[in-house]
Amino acid sequence: MGKLLIVGSVAFDDIETPFGKSDKILGGAGTFISLAASQFKVESAVVSVVGDDFPQSYLDLLTERNIDISGIDIVKGGKTFYWKGKYHNDLNSRDTIITELNTLADFNPIVPDNFKTAEVVMLGNLHPNIQMGVINQMEERPKLIILDTMNFWMNHTWDELVAVIKYIDVITINDEEARQMTNEYSLVKAAAKIQEMGPKYVVIKKGEHGALLFHKEHIFFAPALPLEDVFDPTGAGDTFAGGFAGHLAETKNISFESMKNAIIHGSNLASFCVERFGTERMVELQKHEVDKRLIQFRELTQFNIELT
Amino acid sequence: MGKLLIVGSVAFDDIETPFGKSDKILGGAGTFISLAASQFKVESAVVSVVGDDFPQSYLDLLTERNIDISGIDIVKGGKTFYWKGKYHNDLNSRDTIITELNTLADFNPIVPDNFKTAEVVMLGNLHPNIQMGVINQMEERPKLIILDTMNFWMNHTWDELVAVIKYIDVITINDEEARQMTNEYSLVKAAAKIQEMGPKYVVIKKGEHGALLFHKEHIFFAPALPLEDVFDPTGAGDTFAGGFAGHLAETKNISFESMKNAIIHGSNLASFCVERFGTERMVELQKHEVDKRLIQFRELTQFNIELT
Repeated sequence: MGKLLIVGSVAFDDIETPFGKSDKILGGAGTFISLAASQFKVESAVVSVVGDDFPQSYLDLLTERNIDISGIDIVKGGKTFYWKGKYHNDLNSRDTIITELNTLADFNPIVPDNFKTAEVVMLGNLHPNIQMGVINQMEERPKLIILDTMNFWMNHTWDELVAVIKYIDVITINDEEARQMTNEYSLVKAAAKIQEMGPKYVVIKKGEHGALLFHKEHIFFAPALPLEDVFDPTGAGDTFAGGFAGHLAETKNISFESMKNAIIHGSNLASFCVERFGTERMVELQKHEVDKRLIQFRELTQFNIELT
Repeated sequence: MGKLLIVGSVAFDDIETPFGKSDKILGGAGTFISLAASQFKVESAVVSVVGDDFPQSYLDLLTERNIDISGIDIVKGGKTFYWKGKYHNDLNSRDTIITELNTLADFNPIVPDNFKTAEVVMLGNLHPNIQMGVINQMEERPKLIILDTMNFWMNHTWDELVAVIKYIDVITINDEEARQMTNEYSLVKAAAKIQEMGPKYVVIKKGEHGALLFHKEHIFFAPALPLEDVFDPTGAGDTFAGGFAGHLAETKNISFESMKNAIIHGSNLASFCVERFGTERMVELQKHEVDKRLIQFRELTQFNIELT
């Protein structure tokens, strides 16, 4: 059992999909990552910031799942990060209606002492300087640093992003962002260029079209599990990252073979996340459900061709 | 070794991609299907029609690969079906610039006597009445009838399409067509509805995003092999279908497990097709290249998670 340090927003989401409205509910990358990672035998801590408008019940929900929240700064008189978004009919795109950074605007992450030696660090989607600030607080070089980012940081903080990804092992981004980052349409070429920038492993998330893992000449692919209904895609990418990081922290095995399994675990957990609004499905998720769906993943992808 | 009867256009294609122009070259669904199937130990015949403007060298190219062309009607004074298209920059969409049906407009398929007992019939994308006309000529019910179609026939010959798919076993269509056909966005729901219309197996082609096979509660998925460059997608879907049909005709095993392998073989061959203009890559393709890429498919998709 390894230690996993998670940095990311803990927030309020307000979501509208073609199937309904959520009102103001628990959200944030740090939340989704840590809930997914809690499915594994890991000691995990989440570093984040909220205002004192953030309900104790949401914090308890994390604590009950053995997620160390001593690194969540509760700012007196502050307000919690709030995002309101509306998905289009195909659920593949969305409009942001409101973004209130609130306490997240001045977020200064403080890594709890007992997590400064964590084997795995998962840097959720945040300003690259905040991500770098966390790396700098580690007592020793973690076995694995995973970083998630998005086009917003490429557009506004390119130099800072380039600086931090030199120090990481795995980057997770979506297909459009990989193309934007490298000016290459081919994801094979894009992943090769990104590896030259630092990360030895590149994970490209394609949403309903699955995820790709690149390392040198090796490529692994996991599909998204075909579902009868997708209800709300919010948090699916972070849940994927949390499952990926959680498996690697549990096994402390960062070989390519182990990362393949981590990609499957991440895809598996993401398939639950999208079945309900926000974190609803993840907070009630049981191990037997997770295992059952892993068998479905196996049936979905495994074949046996003998070469003659 | 089984017999495979293929029905489909044998044609001239004229292709423009962001990488160049092909001029008038060999194309057509029947051509791509039969070239892909020729990679397997099968006796195959293609039923089609061309004009006497069609070069003998193109016919020889099929004959040299043991494809029986006695069912290709060469119409004296007639002109061969001609399609000219231009792909957009991302290669995911294209504009048709010219379609001249020519001899294909009055195509009356005649199944060669020695293929009226073929185990597998692959009905390429054509008017559903032509597809039905072929089924009616079979002496006995084939072990497996596979049908490919497209949105054009859904829009213009819906009743005829519904009539023919009652008699088939496997339908291959793309994701948008599956949605159009059923008014369901979820491919899981769409595939279930299509199975109610006749075909016990539904193959949904998603281009660069792979292919799905549905049968009752079973789902299998094969990705497209990630490539550095895609040069020309023309014929990829037909090559996929030819590989699928070819494997099933070779093994005469139509179990779900065998169909999984057929999906992989189809995806594998399609990955070669797109590397050059038209049939260029397929006509020079060697078994050792095919086998090597099957190993890549295995590495791309196979994992080993032990459930605890």
